[in-house]
Amino acid sequence: MKEAEPNQGLVPGKKEILETRELISFYAHITPVLTCRSINALSGSKLFFKCENFQKAGAFKFRGAVNAVMRLSKKEASNGVATHSSGNHAQALSLASKLRGITARIVMPENASLVKVAAVESYGGIIRFCRPTLEDRETTLKEVIKESAAREIHPYNDYRIIAGQATAAAEFLEQISGLESIVVPVGGGGLLSGTILSARYFSSTVRIYGAEPEMANDAQESFRQKRFIPVKDPATVADGLRTSLGSLTFPIISGGAEDILTASEEGIILAMKIIWERMKVIVEPSAAVGLAVILENPDTFRGKRTGVILSGGNTDLSHLPWQIS
Amino acid sequence: MKEAEPNQGLVPGKKEILETRELISFYAHITPVLTCRSINALSGSKLFFKCENFQKAGAFKFRGAVNAVMRLSKKEASNGVATHSSGNHAQALSLASKLRGITARIVMPENASLVKVAAVESYGGIIRFCRPTLEDRETTLKEVIKESAAREIHPYNDYRIIAGQATAAAEFLEQISGLESIVVPVGGGGLLSGTILSARYFSSTVRIYGAEPEMANDAQESFRQKRFIPVKDPATVADGLRTSLGSLTFPIISGGAEDILTASEEGIILAMKIIWERMKVIVEPSAAVGLAVILENPDTFRGKRTGVILSGGNTDLSHLPWQIS
Repeated sequence: MKEAEPNQGLVPGKKEILETRELISFYAHITPVLTCRSINALSGSKLFFKCENFQKAGAFKFRGAVNAVMRLSKKEASNGVATHSSGNHAQALSLASKLRGITARIVMPENASLVKVAAVESYGGIIRFCRPTLEDRETTLKEVIKESAAREIHPYNDYRIIAGQATAAAEFLEQISGLESIVVPVGGGGLLSGTILSARYFSSTVRIYGAEPEMANDAQESFRQKRFIPVKDPATVADGLRTSLGSLTFPIISGGAEDILTASEEGIILAMKIIWERMKVIVEPSAAVGLAVILENPDTFRGKRTGVILSGGNTDLSHLPWQIS
Repeated sequence: MKEAEPNQGLVPGKKEILETRELISFYAHITPVLTCRSINALSGSKLFFKCENFQKAGAFKFRGAVNAVMRLSKKEASNGVATHSSGNHAQALSLASKLRGITARIVMPENASLVKVAAVESYGGIIRFCRPTLEDRETTLKEVIKESAAREIHPYNDYRIIAGQATAAAEFLEQISGLESIVVPVGGGGLLSGTILSARYFSSTVRIYGAEPEMANDAQESFRQKRFIPVKDPATVADGLRTSLGSLTFPIISGGAEDILTASEEGIILAMKIIWERMKVIVEPSAAVGLAVILENPDTFRGKRTGVILSGGNTDLSHLPWQIS
């Protein structure tokens, strides 16, 4: 398990998630829910897609990041924040920090895509490059924090982050009545654990499924074997889901998920293309894993009112996965 | 001027457009309006994007097609409908006919993209291929009509089509108050002339601009010289806007547009990429011409509440224009 120091406190309660919704309402979008008749026909299910790809900075990650940043005391915020991330958390934390007027320092591997580097820079994040190993990322982050006295904001192993991500499902349950299931992609587990908490507090019936690439099925294994099993940088196309669960997210998922289901790489790319073609919305590969799981496990969702969180839309438009073969 | 026989009747009035809204409400989506802070910053304008790319069959064309098909008498509809089109009208007419339970016969050039052929077939349209010249398209359509006794539904030179397309702006003016301008792509002029009619009936102040590729600026020339000037298959990337105005659309545009502005090919591709990247929605090149015109004519729209109709989202995902260079 990734040994980031968790922030103190208890698992977020109902009151905290309600307060978080109020706090982030000043900064984050209430994202729309779309439906698509042809994808319903294809899946045999009644699907509702929560478009977090339309969220600020292009992914649900902004919810957690802005909650974490805005809740820092003036003193805590005074030297800015820091994280290591090559993905959506980097952009989200940079934008949240810009809104608060503090500095975000982002450790990124030197092989990160130019698109992601440019996005972080466009939000004012200060990048420190490192070698592309987890060890070097962590060492470099420690150096950055030592030099700057910035506060670390971990991408998922932090209850403020989890409470922020929980607001997506809280909104979703208000927007669509009678949802029977919600399917959520799982990497580090911030979105999945937040969704489980909101389901517990705001619904008596909805079942929460994690959706994971077969090639990175550490969360499924951990969930089914009831012990933490890490993954080591799997090569799945769903680049947002290559991480292992955290010490704060695993217990919530273990106790609250209905199941964790997987999808093949081909299934993920196909689902992504279906969403682009039929819904005309841009999702990144990780965001397509929910639909991929539904299409590869049709019996579980047949005829059911099923919510899918389209987690993000940040993808390199000059390298689409269906063109690489 | 294309010599399709226009359908009889008068320019659609306010009452007819209201009735059309009611009729098509059973079939068409009320499409959402999106805003994007970063594109506002880029343009210096306050932009509202009406997402007709989310319309049934992926483009505004469905509004006109379903209105035309549903208004046919039982006798008129009995032998189905026919058109020649390699684009969105073909898909829209096929879907509208499927909903009415009649046959749509579509004449398409034999070099039409496989994606478009598959889309028409998926809606049940019956395709007859022809050589890719306007002459052969028209001759083949005449043959098809002679054989089948189908009713021709022209893509824009038809008042039922124009009334259908007018409903997009009628909705838009209800959704967003105080729009100062609306920018609409112009090919054959069905959407532009419909927008002009709705502006006249439902707003006292909004100005309507046509947006056209520089390489296919026949509508601009026709508008400015006040006489019809045709265009001959220009090679613009905006493949939906390669046609000339019609005998019914030109007079409405001539009398009611504020101006027709053009955008460069590079500007169209850039605007399309900006919409994909920033808004995470898929638009086809023709749908990006409105934003391209705004970005290339910033003084006209600076600080103004400006509506843009994103006309469609049907594009071949394996051939993106920024990858062809």
